Amino acid sequence: MDNISSFGIIGGDKRQLYCGKSAIDDGYGVYISGFEKCGTMLGLTDSDIKNTIRNSDAFILPLPVSKDGLTLNAPLADNIIQLDELFEMIGDKPVFCGMKTKLPFGRDNVFDYSIREEFAVANAVPTSEGAVETAMLEYDGTVNNSKCLVAGYGRIGRVLSDILSGLGADVTVSARNLRDIEFIKARGFHAVFTNNLTGKYDIIFNTIPCMIFDSHTLAKVASNALVIDLASMPGGVDFNSAERLGIKAVHALSLPGKVAPKTSGIIIKNAVYNIIREEKL
Amino acid sequence: MDNISSFGIIGGDKRQLYCGKSAIDDGYGVYISGFEKCGTMLGLTDSDIKNTIRNSDAFILPLPVSKDGLTLNAPLADNIIQLDELFEMIGDKPVFCGMKTKLPFGRDNVFDYSIREEFAVANAVPTSEGAVETAMLEYDGTVNNSKCLVAGYGRIGRVLSDILSGLGADVTVSARNLRDIEFIKARGFHAVFTNNLTGKYDIIFNTIPCMIFDSHTLAKVASNALVIDLASMPGGVDFNSAERLGIKAVHALSLPGKVAPKTSGIIIKNAVYNIIREEKL
Amino acid sequence: MDNISSFGIIGGDKRQLYCGKSAIDDGYGVYISGFEKCGTMLGLTDSDIKNTIRNSDAFILPLPVSKDGLTLNAPLADNIIQLDELFEMIGDKPVFCGMKTKLPFGRDNVFDYSIREEFAVANAVPTSEGAVETAMLEYDGTVNNSKCLVAGYGRIGRVLSDILSGLGADVTVSARNLRDIEFIKARGFHAVFTNNLTGKYDIIFNTIPCMIFDSHTLAKVASNALVIDLASMPGGVDFNSAERLGIKAVHALSLPGKVAPKTSGIIIKNAVYNIIREEKL
Amino acid sequence: MDNISSFGIIGGDKRQLYCGKSAIDDGYGVYISGFEKCGTMLGLTDSDIKNTIRNSDAFILPLPVSKDGLTLNAPLADNIIQLDELFEMIGDKPVFCGMKTKLPFGRDNVFDYSIREEFAVANAVPTSEGAVETAMLEYDGTVNNSKCLVAGYGRIGRVLSDILSGLGADVTVSARNLRDIEFIKARGFHAVFTNNLTGKYDIIFNTIPCMIFDSHTLAKVASNALVIDLASMPGGVDFNSAERLGIKAVHALSLPGKVAPKTSGIIIKNAVYNIIREEKL
Repeated sequence: MDNISSFGIIGGDKRQLYCGKSAIDDGYGVYISGFEKCGTMLGLTDSDIKNTIRNSDAFILPLPVSKDGLTLNAPLADNIIQLDELFEMIGDKPVFCGMKTKLPFGRDNVFDYSIREEFAVANAVPTSEGAVETAMLEYDGTVNNSKCLVAGYGRIGRVLSDILSGLGADVTVSARNLRDIEFIKARGFHAVFTNNLTGKYDIIFNTIPCMIFDSHTLAKVASNALVIDLASMPGGVDFNSAERLGIKAVHALSLPGKVAPKTSGIIIKNAVYNIIREEKL
Repeated sequence: MDNISSFGIIGGDKRQLYCGKSAIDDGYGVYISGFEKCGTMLGLTDSDIKNTIRNSDAFILPLPVSKDGLTLNAPLADNIIQLDELFEMIGDKPVFCGMKTKLPFGRDNVFDYSIREEFAVANAVPTSEGAVETAMLEYDGTVNNSKCLVAGYGRIGRVLSDILSGLGADVTVSARNLRDIEFIKARGFHAVFTNNLTGKYDIIFNTIPCMIFDSHTLAKVASNALVIDLASMPGGVDFNSAERLGIKAVHALSLPGKVAPKTSGIIIKNAVYNIIREEKL
Repeated sequence: MDNISSFGIIGGDKRQLYCGKSAIDDGYGVYISGFEKCGTMLGLTDSDIKNTIRNSDAFILPLPVSKDGLTLNAPLADNIIQLDELFEMIGDKPVFCGMKTKLPFGRDNVFDYSIREEFAVANAVPTSEGAVETAMLEYDGTVNNSKCLVAGYGRIGRVLSDILSGLGADVTVSARNLRDIEFIKARGFHAVFTNNLTGKYDIIFNTIPCMIFDSHTLAKVASNALVIDLASMPGGVDFNSAERLGIKAVHALSLPGKVAPKTSGIIIKNAVYNIIREEKL
Repeated sequence: MDNISSFGIIGGDKRQLYCGKSAIDDGYGVYISGFEKCGTMLGLTDSDIKNTIRNSDAFILPLPVSKDGLTLNAPLADNIIQLDELFEMIGDKPVFCGMKTKLPFGRDNVFDYSIREEFAVANAVPTSEGAVETAMLEYDGTVNNSKCLVAGYGRIGRVLSDILSGLGADVTVSARNLRDIEFIKARGFHAVFTNNLTGKYDIIFNTIPCMIFDSHTLAKVASNALVIDLASMPGGVDFNSAERLGIKAVHALSLPGKVAPKTSGIIIKNAVYNIIREEKL
């Protein structure tokens, strides 16, 4: 990390500001642009974009970097920032962004932090806490002593089930393969197969991005439950059937940025550092 | 519990409805009055108060039973219910209520569930979850990996510190005496003396009902922290000093009823059952 | 499992007896042979081997099935049992054994339970408990509040680190890749890279089957530690250097059968059931 | 602690040596006597008793200080040390010992560390680990996933139940009063009343020093269990009935010194420090 001593943070939301603040705490110079609507926040003051680009050795752009493929995703900016103009100004300095595939052009100096495995694992923590926060808000009882089902034992399932257990819930986790079933049992949780869900639950968390909770399964295991779907669109819950059955179901998406922008920003920063180390930038 | 086969639930909020519903699940007949504003809820329908009193063997009144010493605490009722009229109709059937001292008269058949020790311990759970929920809502990072201080190792301190640890926080607990310091260390937490708080924290929970977090202590340990005061009025945090120091401080009161009416209602029911058993009613 | 209603358990140690006992509890007929030295144990009585073979629909042989490639591994038998004679008597009935590659011949009706992934995960539990038991026996302090390092975050590392944390230890886990580092941090443990171990520890557990703790690393992190190597031969600890440095080091092998024959037997039984289900035997 | 800069450790076992070693690490001068049978251990060398007494500002004697009321409890000493001679040599310098009531005389300068509340709580940790170590040695299965009953929710019950839960056991705890029942439920454990034990268990730990497990209760809840009695003599288990019923029962006493002399020695040292602080010695 010898060659990079300053970052330009351009566009995005509160996460990017926390990302910048954390880089300052690590000793980097940080310039931010595209946050005019915030005024000063976390001690960071928005600066003119040309100034930011001139002074920075590398750039951290938001996740996703763009929503429309033409302009930067910069909801807190006063003005629209065109991607082609931005990248022309940046030239060949290193750029780190999320969902690089949203860019209308390929560039050698652009790195995608959002596709990294450790980035996904780290985000399982704020996602899981956001799921628990949602459960606490929506459920009339305590999570403590409630019967919880976590469908799926991937990244989020692993982190979420431990958190629920730590809260004193009675935790059941579903998995597809025998190996994960044994890991689940070793943690002291109840284990069921995903394709044969049984039992009655107070709160159900789905982490699997395919249709698990169809009307049949909802009627079987969720009739008195709050259902929280954490899987990306289209999700794994038949929301129409849930409504018809009188089951409260919530689709909770993009939790990290919403519930824990500080942690999310630090996760972005760590992923950027990891790229810099691996690519020897 | 041979002599009581039905309960009248009169006045109060959602907690009392859940209390009644849970008694139904246990096989009791339940009549409710003073919930006209709800319509049907949890499958319970409001009934005429005379009907409720005639049909019930015993009565469960809210916590507190009255706010003004004259009328029943019945925010969901259409009409005001006078305490003297209510108790005249009830006669000498057993009555269970919270904060019996708010009644303008003493009666032999009135039992206070809210002064029971096990009631207080059971409520430490929803209080602690409500505290965590508040922290999740107000803090920009995750509780996981945050540095938390719990001031006081009484009922709430014990339950709350375990929950925070279960969420993956780095937990420090304060206590006054050496005995509790050892219990805290045995749980794997950091221990400090309450009269000599040290360290820097992300989130601070106060459970002690006297002035612990004065301006001096706030400046020392809370300068970058979110402070959540769980102690009853006047609390243990100098909120004026906190504001002056730019420290976000929240006074979170009466959490059980707010965040977990279902659990709170069941806790009331259990306390009533315990009284019935002890008093052989 | 329609076709199999009885098992013959031939050879092995206490694990196989518990395996048989557990199958009886599930409703199977069980015949045992090769346990003459035990007399009656767990309510099971040794029976003549021809009788056992005639009456059983399938057979469960030990792990490993043979040590010399010629005779059955049957330390509790009075007489040597030749593998070729045994398999001739068994004919084409299904046989389940451990380390099938030790057999001098290939057979279609022989299934190896010991190579199954879920078998390995399930055995991480008794291995981890055996490791903790070893630590308790050899270490002069309590595991509670001790500083523990677990090298490697595979099956055993995952289970062992959770157990140590549950005992109140201060847990550091090493891993090679960033993904596992994030999983470790999400559990609230300290994370270090395996190729750059740092810190000072009271108890070190190695789970990695290659030379991690050479003289250099031992001197750096283990000078005051008890070192327990759980990796199969040749292990991951330089025992000569440890002795020269005055570091107590233990190579703890084959723990499941030694410390928890009951659990080990049930794990074998479960793996057999899984094979039967998958192979539709 | 201005007036004390050196300790004499006279008599006792390995615990006292660890106590002394830990005091050295804190910067104290330490002289030891009555350990001739050890030679050098933990870097400490036995010194002439007169030399030790002359050079030390205060003395730490073992727990119990005497077994016969006449001589010092010094199993590792070559010669018998008479209490009256020892205390005459010591004069009026402060003395810290365990079970002071075993001394044949009262003295103003003698303090008993073993009667302190925080000493008892701290020892609940090595006692509980010793109990788990005993269970691991004696039980054929893993503690993980076993059904455990802890009778009594005092100091040891609190610490032990958390450790068992951390190991992945299914934990039931008994208590006498409703308050503790609620604390137990808040931890996510099953709760039963001590005077009405129910259920079937794999491992039972008794912490209550009166007859809880008589023949009737043993037959009801312990028929397939390993029973470990942690209560001081005469204990809380009818061992004769256990033997008659074929139930394996172990009376595990004085565990801290046996299983964790290092931790026990540090606990003694901490108690001594606390006395010095309180008494302003």
